Amino acid sequence: MAHPVSPLALPMPALPPIPGVRVATGMAEIRYRAREDVMAMAFPAGTTVAGVFTKNRCPGAPVEWSRAALKSGKARGLVVTSGNSNVFTGKAGRETCAKTAEATAKILGCKPKEVFLASTGVIGERLPTEKLVGALPKVFDAATEAGFTAAAAAIMTTDTFPKASVHTAVIGETTVTIAGIAKGSGMIAPDMATMLSFLATDAKIPAAALQAMLKKGCDKSFNCVTVDSDTSTSDTVLLFATGAAKHPRVPAEGGPMLKDFARALNAVLMDLALMVARDGEGAQKLIRIDVTGAVTARSAHKIGMCIANSPLVKTAIAGEDANWGRIVMAVGKSGEPADRDSLSIAVGGVWMARDGGVVEGYDETPVVAHMKGREVEITVDIGLGKGKATVWTCDLTHGYIDINGSYRS
Amino acid sequence: MAHPVSPLALPMPALPPIPGVRVATGMAEIRYRAREDVMAMAFPAGTTVAGVFTKNRCPGAPVEWSRAALKSGKARGLVVTSGNSNVFTGKAGRETCAKTAEATAKILGCKPKEVFLASTGVIGERLPTEKLVGALPKVFDAATEAGFTAAAAAIMTTDTFPKASVHTAVIGETTVTIAGIAKGSGMIAPDMATMLSFLATDAKIPAAALQAMLKKGCDKSFNCVTVDSDTSTSDTVLLFATGAAKHPRVPAEGGPMLKDFARALNAVLMDLALMVARDGEGAQKLIRIDVTGAVTARSAHKIGMCIANSPLVKTAIAGEDANWGRIVMAVGKSGEPADRDSLSIAVGGVWMARDGGVVEGYDETPVVAHMKGREVEITVDIGLGKGKATVWTCDLTHGYIDINGSYRS
Repeated sequence: MAHPVSPLALPMPALPPIPGVRVATGMAEIRYRAREDVMAMAFPAGTTVAGVFTKNRCPGAPVEWSRAALKSGKARGLVVTSGNSNVFTGKAGRETCAKTAEATAKILGCKPKEVFLASTGVIGERLPTEKLVGALPKVFDAATEAGFTAAAAAIMTTDTFPKASVHTAVIGETTVTIAGIAKGSGMIAPDMATMLSFLATDAKIPAAALQAMLKKGCDKSFNCVTVDSDTSTSDTVLLFATGAAKHPRVPAEGGPMLKDFARALNAVLMDLALMVARDGEGAQKLIRIDVTGAVTARSAHKIGMCIANSPLVKTAIAGEDANWGRIVMAVGKSGEPADRDSLSIAVGGVWMARDGGVVEGYDETPVVAHMKGREVEITVDIGLGKGKATVWTCDLTHGYIDINGSYRS
Repeated sequence: MAHPVSPLALPMPALPPIPGVRVATGMAEIRYRAREDVMAMAFPAGTTVAGVFTKNRCPGAPVEWSRAALKSGKARGLVVTSGNSNVFTGKAGRETCAKTAEATAKILGCKPKEVFLASTGVIGERLPTEKLVGALPKVFDAATEAGFTAAAAAIMTTDTFPKASVHTAVIGETTVTIAGIAKGSGMIAPDMATMLSFLATDAKIPAAALQAMLKKGCDKSFNCVTVDSDTSTSDTVLLFATGAAKHPRVPAEGGPMLKDFARALNAVLMDLALMVARDGEGAQKLIRIDVTGAVTARSAHKIGMCIANSPLVKTAIAGEDANWGRIVMAVGKSGEPADRDSLSIAVGGVWMARDGGVVEGYDETPVVAHMKGREVEITVDIGLGKGKATVWTCDLTHGYIDINGSYRS
């Protein structure tokens, strides 16, 4: 089931090699024959790691494995599979993870707990462990520093375009690179979309500082993007730092010398997160929602996500209708503090409603023109405080129903 | 824009007259010419009233009016308009409510605060108060006890079938009647759906007891039904009790003698709520979700609503696919206590997954047959406690996108 490339697709940048980070993809026949379904990465000794995982309360076995492995802060290998998510597989699923990590550790000469795992694909079926373990030596053998770029395409499932981003930062006077890839919002029938993202840098950063930055960056990027409000059981973001770059020592707690690195990391995360929204199932328009004047930033985020997840708002935008009544509805539905009579709403920078009523002499013309574009901007001012947040989503179209509801009928 | 009658429609019962409850519909040209857009009800002196309203934090002016009027517990009149919801209309909206109530009070010889108001329709436009007030004398003049049945059809907006229900109950040894009508899940472009329901009974029940029963009944009926997770700013349920029936005096706190009345009231509310789900925009299937084994009833309700509002679950059911992986996802997404390894899932009474894994020898055949029907039953056992809840929804189809996203494109 091939879908046309999203009209919101962006060109893919070439990723420079991150010294010591070797990447390869290969076939293990996990679900289909003659399809690339394994992506592996090897890291040099001394690599630190940070990770952010799904908040779903029923996560897959690989999420639990990687979450536990994160405690040491060290990484030497990564194995990502598609076709089977190893979710809802009980004890067998945990064994698959242990065996995969052990086999990888043997190949790389490291401890199993230095191997990270992520999977996407069908739920509730046992992952064919022998096939996967059998394929690993050949895959790691083929791993090269040049393989990172190709991996962006290889981890696509029904993504319609590959997603990669690279930014540089300065630590001390040394330039370091952060490169990342992501897959998301595609779907392997009969399965849910899963967002996976893997980043690598040559910076030398203690795991605790790396984790703090990744967590903060994801909160402002991946956690501000929604396609359909559904949360996969396998979402995983991992950042590996090899330490090959020759910059001054970064203290465990990070601190001011990582300011520029944090900026660049946030830029990579934001690039990738927005690509996921741009490739949202059936997406025809990218929607940015700025919420200001909420009582807190957290409240602003909740209101923004409530607007972004409202089927009535999303279908209105698909219909190119600046239906601000539906936005009022979504603000009120969020349950967050809001006073109808202090609420203001703009679309495409044009204020339509101010302080609880329609703007005097409101002219719809520029708003209608804005709605016809590929990128729609909504601003909601709650008028109560200083809390603000920005979230992104896509519109809800027939394409979403086609992708998710029609494959059997 | 007429839509075909929902395949889930039920035949409409004839409502018996409730003595003293006079109902009429009429035209006030609120938004369109030559369309019925006012429904009015008059009640005899001594009528008590209970009400349940939208939880939306940005409710319409009529909701605020009726909520305030409810404090006295007495009702003599009801005015319902369509075409304009009088939401997000600021001071002008409040004035419209006051003037409408004053005009009605003059006609009926009662206090303005004994008049209840509800509206559905476009948001953010001033309701033409003079037109509405001017139309009221003629509408109330035409009100008859026989008008209740016709009102069910008259308050439809883009509902595809009229919704009414009647049940009887015994208080002491006297039989009383509870009749109700509802509209819901239709839409007047460019507006959101609004659920309105009005019930009347000849029972004589103190307002406090009536309110307690209505609240409890709505929590188990209307508040357990979702079409698209979006919450209107105008949802209103009102129950009027005329007191014409000759049964023993009911104490203020209600109590055991209202047990049968509560049963019948719940039956009417449940009938109407399920009709709203059956007429959900684009609905092709009615979905019942039973959650058992949650830590509390509240937790079970949250999990049920999270499944019911999941676009991936709803599109899977539209596609007649028993995709229990998406149900696992939705349980985990709810944020409520759940342990993947104790979770069990059944569709159409057939257990597919038990205690965190696929059922040994699971045969999909009966499940596939069940999914092809108009009514789909999902059971989820969380395996942690004794909390249970049941919620209803409909599937998510191209029809929903057509109705909500295509009227301008």
